[in-house]
Amino acid sequence: MSKPIYVLNGPNLNLLGVREPTVYGKATLEQVRELCEARADAFGRKVVFRQTNHEGELIDWVQEAREQACALVLNPAGYGHTSVSLLDALRTLPIPVVECHLSNPAAREHFRRHSFVALAAAGTISGFGPLSYELAVDAALRLCGAVRAA
Amino acid sequence: MSKPIYVLNGPNLNLLGVREPTVYGKATLEQVRELCEARADAFGRKVVFRQTNHEGELIDWVQEAREQACALVLNPAGYGHTSVSLLDALRTLPIPVVECHLSNPAAREHFRRHSFVALAAAGTISGFGPLSYELAVDAALRLCGAVRAA
Amino acid sequence: MSKPIYVLNGPNLNLLGVREPTVYGKATLEQVRELCEARADAFGRKVVFRQTNHEGELIDWVQEAREQACALVLNPAGYGHTSVSLLDALRTLPIPVVECHLSNPAAREHFRRHSFVALAAAGTISGFGPLSYELAVDAALRLCGAVRAA
Amino acid sequence: MSKPIYVLNGPNLNLLGVREPTVYGKATLEQVRELCEARADAFGRKVVFRQTNHEGELIDWVQEAREQACALVLNPAGYGHTSVSLLDALRTLPIPVVECHLSNPAAREHFRRHSFVALAAAGTISGFGPLSYELAVDAALRLCGAVRAA
Amino acid sequence: MSKPIYVLNGPNLNLLGVREPTVYGKATLEQVRELCEARADAFGRKVVFRQTNHEGELIDWVQEAREQACALVLNPAGYGHTSVSLLDALRTLPIPVVECHLSNPAAREHFRRHSFVALAAAGTISGFGPLSYELAVDAALRLCGAVRAA
Amino acid sequence: MSKPIYVLNGPNLNLLGVREPTVYGKATLEQVRELCEARADAFGRKVVFRQTNHEGELIDWVQEAREQACALVLNPAGYGHTSVSLLDALRTLPIPVVECHLSNPAAREHFRRHSFVALAAAGTISGFGPLSYELAVDAALRLCGAVRAA
Amino acid sequence: MSKPIYVLNGPNLNLLGVREPTVYGKATLEQVRELCEARADAFGRKVVFRQTNHEGELIDWVQEAREQACALVLNPAGYGHTSVSLLDALRTLPIPVVECHLSNPAAREHFRRHSFVALAAAGTISGFGPLSYELAVDAALRLCGAVRAA
Amino acid sequence: MSKPIYVLNGPNLNLLGVREPTVYGKATLEQVRELCEARADAFGRKVVFRQTNHEGELIDWVQEAREQACALVLNPAGYGHTSVSLLDALRTLPIPVVECHLSNPAAREHFRRHSFVALAAAGTISGFGPLSYELAVDAALRLCGAVRAA
Amino acid sequence: MSKPIYVLNGPNLNLLGVREPTVYGKATLEQVRELCEARADAFGRKVVFRQTNHEGELIDWVQEAREQACALVLNPAGYGHTSVSLLDALRTLPIPVVECHLSNPAAREHFRRHSFVALAAAGTISGFGPLSYELAVDAALRLCGAVRAA
Amino acid sequence: MSKPIYVLNGPNLNLLGVREPTVYGKATLEQVRELCEARADAFGRKVVFRQTNHEGELIDWVQEAREQACALVLNPAGYGHTSVSLLDALRTLPIPVVECHLSNPAAREHFRRHSFVALAAAGTISGFGPLSYELAVDAALRLCGAVRAA
Amino acid sequence: MSKPIYVLNGPNLNLLGVREPTVYGKATLEQVRELCEARADAFGRKVVFRQTNHEGELIDWVQEAREQACALVLNPAGYGHTSVSLLDALRTLPIPVVECHLSNPAAREHFRRHSFVALAAAGTISGFGPLSYELAVDAALRLCGAVRAA
Amino acid sequence: MSKPIYVLNGPNLNLLGVREPTVYGKATLEQVRELCEARADAFGRKVVFRQTNHEGELIDWVQEAREQACALVLNPAGYGHTSVSLLDALRTLPIPVVECHLSNPAAREHFRRHSFVALAAAGTISGFGPLSYELAVDAALRLCGAVRAA
Repeated sequence: MSKPIYVLNGPNLNLLGVREPTVYGKATLEQVRELCEARADAFGRKVVFRQTNHEGELIDWVQEAREQACALVLNPAGYGHTSVSLLDALRTLPIPVVECHLSNPAAREHFRRHSFVALAAAGTISGFGPLSYELAVDAALRLCGAVRAA
Repeated sequence: MSKPIYVLNGPNLNLLGVREPTVYGKATLEQVRELCEARADAFGRKVVFRQTNHEGELIDWVQEAREQACALVLNPAGYGHTSVSLLDALRTLPIPVVECHLSNPAAREHFRRHSFVALAAAGTISGFGPLSYELAVDAALRLCGAVRAA
Repeated sequence: MSKPIYVLNGPNLNLLGVREPTVYGKATLEQVRELCEARADAFGRKVVFRQTNHEGELIDWVQEAREQACALVLNPAGYGHTSVSLLDALRTLPIPVVECHLSNPAAREHFRRHSFVALAAAGTISGFGPLSYELAVDAALRLCGAVRAA
Repeated sequence: MSKPIYVLNGPNLNLLGVREPTVYGKATLEQVRELCEARADAFGRKVVFRQTNHEGELIDWVQEAREQACALVLNPAGYGHTSVSLLDALRTLPIPVVECHLSNPAAREHFRRHSFVALAAAGTISGFGPLSYELAVDAALRLCGAVRAA
Repeated sequence: MSKPIYVLNGPNLNLLGVREPTVYGKATLEQVRELCEARADAFGRKVVFRQTNHEGELIDWVQEAREQACALVLNPAGYGHTSVSLLDALRTLPIPVVECHLSNPAAREHFRRHSFVALAAAGTISGFGPLSYELAVDAALRLCGAVRAA
Repeated sequence: MSKPIYVLNGPNLNLLGVREPTVYGKATLEQVRELCEARADAFGRKVVFRQTNHEGELIDWVQEAREQACALVLNPAGYGHTSVSLLDALRTLPIPVVECHLSNPAAREHFRRHSFVALAAAGTISGFGPLSYELAVDAALRLCGAVRAA
Repeated sequence: MSKPIYVLNGPNLNLLGVREPTVYGKATLEQVRELCEARADAFGRKVVFRQTNHEGELIDWVQEAREQACALVLNPAGYGHTSVSLLDALRTLPIPVVECHLSNPAAREHFRRHSFVALAAAGTISGFGPLSYELAVDAALRLCGAVRAA
Repeated sequence: MSKPIYVLNGPNLNLLGVREPTVYGKATLEQVRELCEARADAFGRKVVFRQTNHEGELIDWVQEAREQACALVLNPAGYGHTSVSLLDALRTLPIPVVECHLSNPAAREHFRRHSFVALAAAGTISGFGPLSYELAVDAALRLCGAVRAA
Repeated sequence: MSKPIYVLNGPNLNLLGVREPTVYGKATLEQVRELCEARADAFGRKVVFRQTNHEGELIDWVQEAREQACALVLNPAGYGHTSVSLLDALRTLPIPVVECHLSNPAAREHFRRHSFVALAAAGTISGFGPLSYELAVDAALRLCGAVRAA
Repeated sequence: MSKPIYVLNGPNLNLLGVREPTVYGKATLEQVRELCEARADAFGRKVVFRQTNHEGELIDWVQEAREQACALVLNPAGYGHTSVSLLDALRTLPIPVVECHLSNPAAREHFRRHSFVALAAAGTISGFGPLSYELAVDAALRLCGAVRAA
Repeated sequence: MSKPIYVLNGPNLNLLGVREPTVYGKATLEQVRELCEARADAFGRKVVFRQTNHEGELIDWVQEAREQACALVLNPAGYGHTSVSLLDALRTLPIPVVECHLSNPAAREHFRRHSFVALAAAGTISGFGPLSYELAVDAALRLCGAVRAA
Repeated sequence: MSKPIYVLNGPNLNLLGVREPTVYGKATLEQVRELCEARADAFGRKVVFRQTNHEGELIDWVQEAREQACALVLNPAGYGHTSVSLLDALRTLPIPVVECHLSNPAAREHFRRHSFVALAAAGTISGFGPLSYELAVDAALRLCGAVRAA
C-alpha cells in the first residue's frame, strides 16, 4: 500500500484563525487539514497531519517520516528561522520536503528572511494562506509520483 | 471576456533546457509555455507568455499587465535580486503577483538570497522546476477567482 | 471571579540561588514565588507561578494564558534571545505582557542584547534581582486594572 | 536628614503630553512629577525633578547627584542612545541608577536599540508610560533602603 | 563509590550511521556507547550515555549531572550553535565539560562556526568521528582525577 | 542660441499620478513637464523632457546631454540606487547635474538610502513632490548662468 | 499677521567663508542671511535666522518654532548625523521642515551619509552652496502657502 | 573555418578617450578595436568587436557567442559590479571567458571591488589600459588553441 | 608676544582623581594643570587650561583657539567618539592639534575605538595618565616652534 | 621503518610556563615534548618536536613533513588566526593534521575565534593544557594506523 | 645595460605541480621559470626568478628590486591577502608592479577576495595557470619600454 | 648597571626618508636612532635600536627584551595591524611597552585603524614624525623610573 504524505506544523499554528487574523486569515488548522486531505484523497493518498509547539517533537516526527512517508510538507513556523537541529533532521530524509508558509516571510521582519528549512527543501511555497497548503500537497503528490500532469 | 494571466520570464530563460541542465532541468521554455497554457485552458483562461533579457522591457510588460491581465506570474531570474525598478513597477499593479523560480534560491549563492520581487508578491513558489510554473498558474487562477477549490 | 496573573519562568531558573550567585543573587525561585504571591494577594489577585526548561512547554503555557490570565509576567531566560516561536506565541495574546529579568542583559555578553520577547511586551523590567519580579507584578496588577495609583 | 532621589529627564520630555501622544501618552511632565513625589512622599523621601534639552547640563546634574542624592532615576531620552559622555558621568556615581523609559525602545527604530545608559544602570524599566516612573521611584526607594518589602 | 561520566548527545545523533554517512561515518550510536564504556571501564568508571532531540530534556540532564557526575562529555549537535539556554545550564556546573563533535564544524557551513557550548567548556575535541568520543572520555577521566599520565 | 536643460526621468515615472498616489501625489508626468517648461521659459531656456524604463536608454540620453545641454536634471527613480553604469555616464559630463526625487528616500526602505547618482551630482533636491522639479529647474538655470539671484 | 520662517544653523556655520572655503565657498553666514531675507521679503514673509554650536540650544529653538513659525529651514551641520534628540524635537513639529546643506554629504566621508534630520523632514536640498538656502526658503514659502506656482 | 573571438564592451566605453582621460587614457575605442584585430590577425583569427550601453543587449550578445565564438573577451564596465543576469548568461557558455578592465578596480571605490563576471571567467586582466585588451586577446587566442607558446 | 597653548578638557574630567581611580589614576585635574604649566613655563609659553561638560562650549573654545593659540592640546573624553561637530570645528583650525588621552582607548570598550578627533589631529598621545599631558604639551611646544630638539 | 609524528609549535610557545601562567599553565615546552615522546614511544613511534617564531620556517617544516612524517600535530599559536599561507601549506599534505591548542580560543578575544588551520585539519583538540598534546598525539597515532582501539 | 625583470613568488609555490594539481595545474615552478625567461629573452631582457616561504624575505627582495629591476612581477600567494607590510614595501617602488595569480581568487574562498598587493599594482593578471606568468612578463616588458606593440 | 631601552622597528622602516617622503618625512632611520640615543643619553640610559622586515625576528627581539630591557619602544609598522603573534609576544613582557608611529594611522586606510600592539601597550604616540620617537623615549625613560618630572 502506498505511503501517506506527512504534513507537519510548527509552533502556534494550533491557534490559526485566532492568531492575528489580518496576517494569517480566518481559516482554522482543522479546516486546513480538511483541505489537505481532500486534495490527497482525490489521488488515493492519505495525509498524516500534526501540530506541535515543541522543537524536539517536530524533530522526532521528521525522523519518523523517514520510513513512514512518501513526502513531507512542513510549515516550520518560528523554528524554520532558528533551528539548525531541524535542518539536520531534514537532511537525513531520503524523501522530498516541501516547505510551506501561510504568509510571505520576505515581506515581514528581517529575522524571518532566513530559513534553515529551505536549505534542505526541494521547494518552497509561501504567501497564499491556506492555498499554500493545497499547492504544497499538490507538489508533494507529484514528487511522490502519484499524479501525472493534469 | 475574462482577462488572461501574464507569465513573464526574465533573462537567460530562453536558454532553458540548454543552460546548466543539472540545475535547471531539461525542459525547454516552449514546453513550459505549453504546460502553463494547458493548465489555464482547463479553466477557460488564456496565458500571455513572454521572455526578455532586457530589464526595461520586463518593466514595460509589467506596466502593460496593469490593465490587460487578471494576475501576473513572474520569474524574474537575475533581475529579481538586483532590480529596485522592477519592484517599483510591481507596486503599481492592482492585480496579484505570483513569484516563480525553477530552482531554490535559498540553497544557492548568497547573492540569490534576497528578492526585491518578493516584497511585492502575493506569494512565492520555488524549487520544483517546470512544476513551479504549473503551481504558480494554479495559484494565479485561484487568485483571479476562476477556480473553486477542486 | 477575577483571573490570576501568570508568572512564567524559562530554563535554569529552577537553580536560582545555586547558579552563579554573584550574578543572580542568593534567593531561590521558591522565595521569588512567595514575593510575587504576597504582592498580588494584597490586591486580591492569585498568581500562577511555573518554571520549565522546555521551549515548547513555555509556548504551551503562554497559549494557556490567553484565556486563563489577566496579565503575563515572563522571565524567558535564554529563550528570550533566540526564540522566534516564543515571540509568535506572545503575539497571539490579548492580555498585557511584562518582560522580567533578574540581571541587566545590556551589561552582559553581546548575544544577550537582543530580546525577541521585548518586541511583544508592554514593557520590560530588568536588573533588580528578585525586586524585578515584585515590580513586574505591580505593573501587571496595574495593567489588569486591579490597582489604583497608590 | 535623608538624601532625596534625583529624577532627571532628557531632551523633549518638556513636551510630554503634546509630542506624539499616540506614542507617549497624554500625561504632562508636571503630572509625572506629581506621581513621583507622591510615591516618594509615602516613604518620607523628597524628589528632585528636572528636565533639560542640553547634554552638558544633564551631565552637570548627574555629577551633582554624586553627593546630593541617594539614588538616580534617569530618563535620558535621545541622549541615552548616543552619549558616551553621559555613560562616563554615570560611572562616576557611587549611588544606584535606575534607567526609565516611557515607551519600549526595543519595539521602535533600530537606532533606539542600544542604550549607553544601560551599561551603567542597576536596572531598567521601560514601556509602561508614566507608570514606568512610579515603578522606577519604587525601585530607587528600595535601593536607598527606605522601604522594606511591602 | 566514584561518580560516573555523563555522555550526553543532542538531536539526530540517534540516526548515526544512517544519516549522511559520508559526513558522519558508519558507526552507530550504540557502537559509540560501547567505545565509551570500554574506555571508562579500564579505569573503573561508569558511563551514563543518553540521546535526545529535545533541547529542554538536554538541559534537564545537564542539570542532573551537577550532582550525579564527575565530568560531562557533551555532543550538542545543532543546539550547540543556537542555544543560549544550554550555555546557561552548563555554567551552573561545578564539574568539567568536554565538548565533542564527530565532524569539524570549522570546515562546514558558516552557521556552524559559533559554539555556545565552547564558552563554558574546559576543552573541545572535534573532527575524529567516533574517535572524538574516545579522546573526550580520556580527557574526562583525566579531569576526574581517575587516570595518571599513561 | 543657448542650450536647453535636459530633464530625464527613470523607470515607472510614466505612471505618475496613477502609481501609489499617497506616496507620489496626483500630478501626472505631463503636468510636471509643463511646470518645468513654464519655469525655464520665464528665463528664455528650453527644456528637453523624457522618460524611459530602460537603463541603457537613460545612459544613451545622459551621453547625448554631454554636448546638447547646459545642465541635466535627473530623477533616476530605481536606477539611482543600483546603477554603477549610470554613475559612470554622469561622470563623463562637463555640465552640472541636479538629482531630483519626488519623495524623500531617506524616510523609506533601507535600500533607497544609497544613491549612486549623488556621487556625481552638483546637488540633490528631494521630498517636495512636483515642487522638487521646479526647484531643480531653478537650480539648473542658476548653474547655467541664465538667472541672476531674483 | 503671518508667521515667519525659521532658518536655524548648527555648529561651525558661524565660520562660513572662513572654514575650508574650497568645500563651503566664500560667502559668509551674514551674506546667507541676507539672501534668505531678500527671498522671503519678496513674498511678505519675515525670516528668523540664528546659529549655535550647542545641540541643546538648537533643540530649544526647534521647540520654539512649534508655535512661532510657519516653516523651518534647518542646516543641522554635524548634529544632523549624530543627534537622535534633534530628530525627536523635529517630530514634535506640526509645521514643515526643509533640511538644507551647503555641500553634498553623499560625496563626503561615510559618517556623513546618514541624516537623522531627513527622517523628519518634508524634503532635503543639498550641494548648491548658498543657493541651497535660497531654494530651501523658496520651498518653505510654498509649503507655508505664501506663494503660488510662479 | 575557425570561429572568431568576441570582444564585447559594456556601458560608456564608447566615450573612451573622452571620459576621464586621467583614469582611462587617451586611446579611443576605435583604436582599441584596431589593436585587438591586429593581434588576432597575426594568428589568422577574426574579432567581433561591439559596444552597448544596454544590459539586455550585452546579454543577447553573450548568448549569441555561445555558438558563434571560440572565446569571449568581456569588459563589462559598470554591469560587472551589479548584474547577476550577466553572470547567469556567462554561465551558459561552453567557451572560455576573459574578463578585461582598463583600470584596476581594486584601487578604486569599494563598490567596484566585487565582480559578478569574475565568478564565471577563466581569468581576469586589469589595470593596463589598452594593453589589457591586447593581453586579453592573447589569452583568448591561447585558450582557443590557435597559438603555441611563442 | 607669543601665543599660549590651549589645553582643553571634555566631559567628566573635572572629576579626575575621584572617578574610577583604578582606570584614570589619583591625580586631580588641578594637578594636571600645574604639570602642563610647568612644562610650558620652562620654554616661556603660557597655557590656557579649561574643562567643560558641554559639547557646544568645547566647540566655542576650539573656535576661539583659531586666533588665540599657537597650538591646541585636546582631551575630548567622551565627545571624541561621537562628535562630528567637534571634528568640523577642529578642521577650521590653522594651528596644530594634539589629541591626548589618560587611558588607552584601544584596550577598552569597542565604542571607544573610533576617534573623530584623530581625523583632524597632527598626532595622538594616549595611555600614560598625567604623563600623556606632559608629552602632549612637549609636542605642542615643538610644533609651535618654541623648542629645539633638546 | 615507520615514519615519525611531527609536532610543530608556533610563536611564543618557547616561553611556555613563563608566559601568562594563569592562562597557559606552568609546564614548560620541554616537559610537553617529554609527554609527547612518552606517548608515542609506547607505540614504537618517534616524535619530531620543534618550535619557531617565524611563519616562513613553520611553512618550511610543514612542507618537510609531506614526505618525512606519518601525521602532523600542529599548535600554530598566533599564526593559526592570520596565516592563509600556512593553510595553503597544510593543504599540500597527504597526511592527517591534528590542530592542538593549550587554551580554548572560543572563550578568548574575538580575533581568536577564526582558525585557518581548522580548514585543513582532520580534527582539533583545545583547552586541556599539556593534556591537549597528549590527546593529539594519541589521535595522530590512531590516524597513522599504529594503534588499535585500546 | 638594461635592468632585468624581477619575478618573485610567495609561499608554497615551490610545490607547484605537486600541490592540488586540479587547482594549480601540473607545471612545476622550474617550468614556469623557463617560460618567463624565454619570453623575456626574445626581447633581450633577463629575468630574476625566486621563491620563498618567508614574508620578511619577500619584503627584502621587493626592496632590492627598487634599484635592481625595471619591473616587478609578483605572485604573492597567501601573503597577498594578509600582508600590509608587503603592500608598504611595494609602495616604495618607483617601478611598475604586475600582480600575477595562477588561479582566479574571485572564484575561491571569501578570504581570497581581498588583495593588498592590488592596491599598489599597475595591473593584475589571474586565472590562466602558467599562461598568467607569460602574460605578466609581456606586460612587464611593455611597461619597461622594451617592447613595441607587436 | 641599568638596563637599556629597546627601540624596535618593523618592516620597511629601513627605507625611511626614501619611502613616500610626503607621508613619512625626510629623516632617515639612522637620524632617528641618533635622536633616540641623544634623548636617553641625557639620562644615562643606553638605547638598543634595530630594524627588521621579518615578523619572526621582531618576535625574537621582543622576547629578548624580556630580560635585557627596562622598557620597549616599538614601531611595528605593517605588522601592528595583522600580527596576533606579535601581540602574544608583547603580553609575555613584564616591562612597559610604548607603541610609536610616524604618521597617524587613524587618518589613513581603514585597515590601519586596528592595532594589535595597542592591546598590550602602556600607551601610544603617533603622528609626529621623528618627534614621535623622541616622545616615546621620554615616556619610556619615565616608565623606567630614570627620570623625574622635569
